[in-house]
Amino acid sequence: MPEFNAPLRDMRFVLNELFQAPALWADMPGLAQQIDAETADAILQEAASITSGLIAPLNRSGDEEGVSFSDGKAATPAGFLDAYATYSRGGWVGLSGNPEYGGLGAPKMLSVLFEEMLYAANSSFALYSVLSSGACLALDTHADEALKSRYLPAMYEGRWAGSMCLTEAHAGTDLGLIRSRAEPCTDGSYRISGSKIFITGGEQDLTENIIHLVLAKLPDAAPGAKGISLFLVPKVLVNEDGSLGSRNTVSCGSIEHKMGIKASATCVMNFDGATGWLIGEPGKGLAAMFTMMNYERLSIGIQGLGCAEASYQNARKYAQERLQSRSADKTAVSAGIADPIIVHGDVRRMLLTIKAMTEGGRAFACYVAQQLDLSKYSPDPHARSRASLLVALLTPVAKAFFTDNGLESCVLGQQVFGGHGYIREWGQEQLVRDVRIAQIYEGTNGIQALDLLGRKVLGGSGEALQLFADEIREHAQHTRSGYATPLQSALDRLVDLSQWLREQAASHPHIISGSCVEYLHLFGFVSYAYLWSRMAELADRYYDTDTQFYGAKRATAEFFFARLLPRIESLEACIRNGTNSLYALTAEQF
Amino acid sequence: MPEFNAPLRDMRFVLNELFQAPALWADMPGLAQQIDAETADAILQEAASITSGLIAPLNRSGDEEGVSFSDGKAATPAGFLDAYATYSRGGWVGLSGNPEYGGLGAPKMLSVLFEEMLYAANSSFALYSVLSSGACLALDTHADEALKSRYLPAMYEGRWAGSMCLTEAHAGTDLGLIRSRAEPCTDGSYRISGSKIFITGGEQDLTENIIHLVLAKLPDAAPGAKGISLFLVPKVLVNEDGSLGSRNTVSCGSIEHKMGIKASATCVMNFDGATGWLIGEPGKGLAAMFTMMNYERLSIGIQGLGCAEASYQNARKYAQERLQSRSADKTAVSAGIADPIIVHGDVRRMLLTIKAMTEGGRAFACYVAQQLDLSKYSPDPHARSRASLLVALLTPVAKAFFTDNGLESCVLGQQVFGGHGYIREWGQEQLVRDVRIAQIYEGTNGIQALDLLGRKVLGGSGEALQLFADEIREHAQHTRSGYATPLQSALDRLVDLSQWLREQAASHPHIISGSCVEYLHLFGFVSYAYLWSRMAELADRYYDTDTQFYGAKRATAEFFFARLLPRIESLEACIRNGTNSLYALTAEQF
Repeated sequence: MPEFNAPLRDMRFVLNELFQAPALWADMPGLAQQIDAETADAILQEAASITSGLIAPLNRSGDEEGVSFSDGKAATPAGFLDAYATYSRGGWVGLSGNPEYGGLGAPKMLSVLFEEMLYAANSSFALYSVLSSGACLALDTHADEALKSRYLPAMYEGRWAGSMCLTEAHAGTDLGLIRSRAEPCTDGSYRISGSKIFITGGEQDLTENIIHLVLAKLPDAAPGAKGISLFLVPKVLVNEDGSLGSRNTVSCGSIEHKMGIKASATCVMNFDGATGWLIGEPGKGLAAMFTMMNYERLSIGIQGLGCAEASYQNARKYAQERLQSRSADKTAVSAGIADPIIVHGDVRRMLLTIKAMTEGGRAFACYVAQQLDLSKYSPDPHARSRASLLVALLTPVAKAFFTDNGLESCVLGQQVFGGHGYIREWGQEQLVRDVRIAQIYEGTNGIQALDLLGRKVLGGSGEALQLFADEIREHAQHTRSGYATPLQSALDRLVDLSQWLREQAASHPHIISGSCVEYLHLFGFVSYAYLWSRMAELADRYYDTDTQFYGAKRATAEFFFARLLPRIESLEACIRNGTNSLYALTAEQF
Repeated sequence: MPEFNAPLRDMRFVLNELFQAPALWADMPGLAQQIDAETADAILQEAASITSGLIAPLNRSGDEEGVSFSDGKAATPAGFLDAYATYSRGGWVGLSGNPEYGGLGAPKMLSVLFEEMLYAANSSFALYSVLSSGACLALDTHADEALKSRYLPAMYEGRWAGSMCLTEAHAGTDLGLIRSRAEPCTDGSYRISGSKIFITGGEQDLTENIIHLVLAKLPDAAPGAKGISLFLVPKVLVNEDGSLGSRNTVSCGSIEHKMGIKASATCVMNFDGATGWLIGEPGKGLAAMFTMMNYERLSIGIQGLGCAEASYQNARKYAQERLQSRSADKTAVSAGIADPIIVHGDVRRMLLTIKAMTEGGRAFACYVAQQLDLSKYSPDPHARSRASLLVALLTPVAKAFFTDNGLESCVLGQQVFGGHGYIREWGQEQLVRDVRIAQIYEGTNGIQALDLLGRKVLGGSGEALQLFADEIREHAQHTRSGYATPLQSALDRLVDLSQWLREQAASHPHIISGSCVEYLHLFGFVSYAYLWSRMAELADRYYDTDTQFYGAKRATAEFFFARLLPRIESLEACIRNGTNSLYALTAEQF
């Protein structure tokens, strides 16, 4: 039975040493009263305790049992209900919520670390909470005061959950095609009708109520995406005093049978003239929903990280204990019937690949979170707008790169186990099945890549990339990490390639879609190289204080630059070979 | 519900045009009487019919139902028993078997194409047959006449199956550690005792008898691998007249619950003084078992190909039909609510990656099969020994490269479906789960890579690599494919890198294990480049006779050289950065 232990030592390194978060918080008036170093550490410790002690033990049983469905009701697996109640009482759903309505107001830099633990412990369980937090964020940002004060407190408390109703059977990536309708009523409410699919937590038995955020079109709506509005549709109508009233006409038609995240209810939701309320302005629904989607995109990226960390912990333990064959270095042979397989080069390659990607990813997640906190809380308007540009640029990278690496890491961690990795009892195969969805939902990784290259890099003046590149160049010019040269060279490749793509795109309409995935990966490696250089510099500085930890950090940096960063060479070569070969066949010739 | 249609057009191209197999067969006395162009084509057509009509329809139901186990008996899913009987009556188990004992004596070049169809249709079903065929091959090669004439006919008929009992709980990769024992009896038989795990088809309800090939140690055995002998242990003892006698003391203790291939029974087998017979010489068991293992390794590689082909067929159909978003090329916009997603560059990139890898792999599988046929049937002893060297060199490449590409292809095919790819009903998630085992069993892909680099390339004089390189160079010097330059350059990289690794290995004991996986991939891409250049040359030559087919072949070759072959750049860069970074941490620092 696999165990999960939150990687607190590395999380503290990232939060306190790499980003010096407590000093940053002290400079931000909106955060200074919510958080300091001691509080943050206490939250991390408590998060480690609840995820490893309460939530991780439900991961495998939840997968085995799955969600059951009958008479329109979805029942979560044994133990989920009690655990979710305990979890909610601990305030975790509202961890980063608005304190005016009962949220704890924790910085994103802290909540990304918490979310990593949560996904590592149990991805299915995590989703119920994370969707609620995202729905709260969209409400807090776009809803009027009446809706906020009626719904947010119970949602932050975890008594009510949130869901995100976008996709319809014929409209996934292309939301402009949705057919759900909203008819205005005389009392200011709306009657919502339509059918949504793939709704995570659309129905469940964990909470008293579910607050659906639903995309639909008003009668006079413009065609396409500009005609979409956002509505709040509660499962159970809420009286003026906040008590629960009658059941709304929204129901779950069925649940999906999936490859993984089997303890997460994925629902078909039917809205039959259900009562709802407009959130924000008519026709601006997609923009409002993007507040939630961007939140979820970073979060789903972190699912990739969390699953990779869990896979690493299991594989490391197995590699340290499993005896099989002898070391190629005859001087390193141990006394047993064979050596632990961690002596073998290929096993080390697999483990170090996961380790370098996960630690690099953790640092990158915290970096993006830092920009999110700056964009919201910095007293300096210039710093806020700079941070917002970086958030927009880096969110698709985080979502797609973390989850692509998440699959690779889970597959590698499974491979370390040999045949045992394919057997259910060891837990590695579940991680592969669970992490796979993260490359698909919240916008496929192909869509993230299109967003990055088409919109964020080439769509405007290129200012965001320039900001990021300037910051990296500044670091490379002064660092003593020993990696200034490869970092500078990798950055130059990224910048030159971006310019080349801008020129190409003028005459080759398909080049963006045809090279964006490789581009996003290249971008991800350069970003990790920047953070690994920063981490290596710190590891040298603090080496004497903890040779085990900082020695491992230095060695992992070395592995990253020697064995992972060179992947950008092929990515660049593929992109520069252009996309003509993609269009040399007709659709029928495939 | 996914459908499978054997890619007959491409298989005929590979067999008849690329390798001109019928002309080869006519020159080999052992094959000329078994096979000709018409017979081969009739077999391919019949194989296409039985795999798509009889076996593929059981794939999803078999996954849903799985194997059940009670009272020591394993029951296959509904439909398997009847289908296996029909399949056996068709002679498919003995397709490449020895005609002296009732096999059909078909060349390997034909049976690899058949096996691809079989795995594409239903990997679980395929395994029951393929293990039997492999056991027959080991018996035919190493057993004495008495054993052969008593067991082979019923096995070729499919009335009895075979199994391969190697792994024990503490001994997987490292078979020298096995503890199973064989005590000689006065009548020339042996009493076999021990417990084996991960035994595919160790117990099932498809056949009257199961003939286990079991590795065990005699009382006076040398330590390690040299002490291993191979035994034939039937589930039911066989009387002298070939009729079934009493039950042997071998039993199935349990079956495994796995990520995929759920309709394949993976068994724990207990031998309690079971009666068995020695196959070949004492202490030479591992070598005899390798006859079967090498057969299975190529076959398992083909599982990767087959699953990739199935994934491609489903994804292509979905991409041609699913309407979502508009083409980046505004002149290509269709009349519907949106364009079929096959217009989008990233969807084409995913489909073409699968297509180029699968068609390249199919050609490579047939190339290895050609060498197998030459090594067995060529009248020229020099040609036989040359072919044997190539088989030994290329088998680990086929096993690992096909299956690593198989996972990538199934994941990409799933990705094309977006959220629908994660739902069971579309079949794509099952392919990912089913293909994943192929990277693990029959020797993990890491072990294949170690075999390739450590033993086949650096272990001896390097003659095999030189033979292969000479053949490629000869082609590159004369080809009009248009790809002579990139092919030559890729080959030079491989040869230079091999030489560099030979030099490094003298002083760096871990460099083989630490770089063998990247090396194997680089080797695979160079091999595919050779075959793609040959295929492109033919596509030019025959273009006018079938512009649809040969035009697609040309375009796919172009894609391979533009977008896939450049992956060797990073692989080489990683290898040349050495393995020091793998050993900069202690085992505890991971």
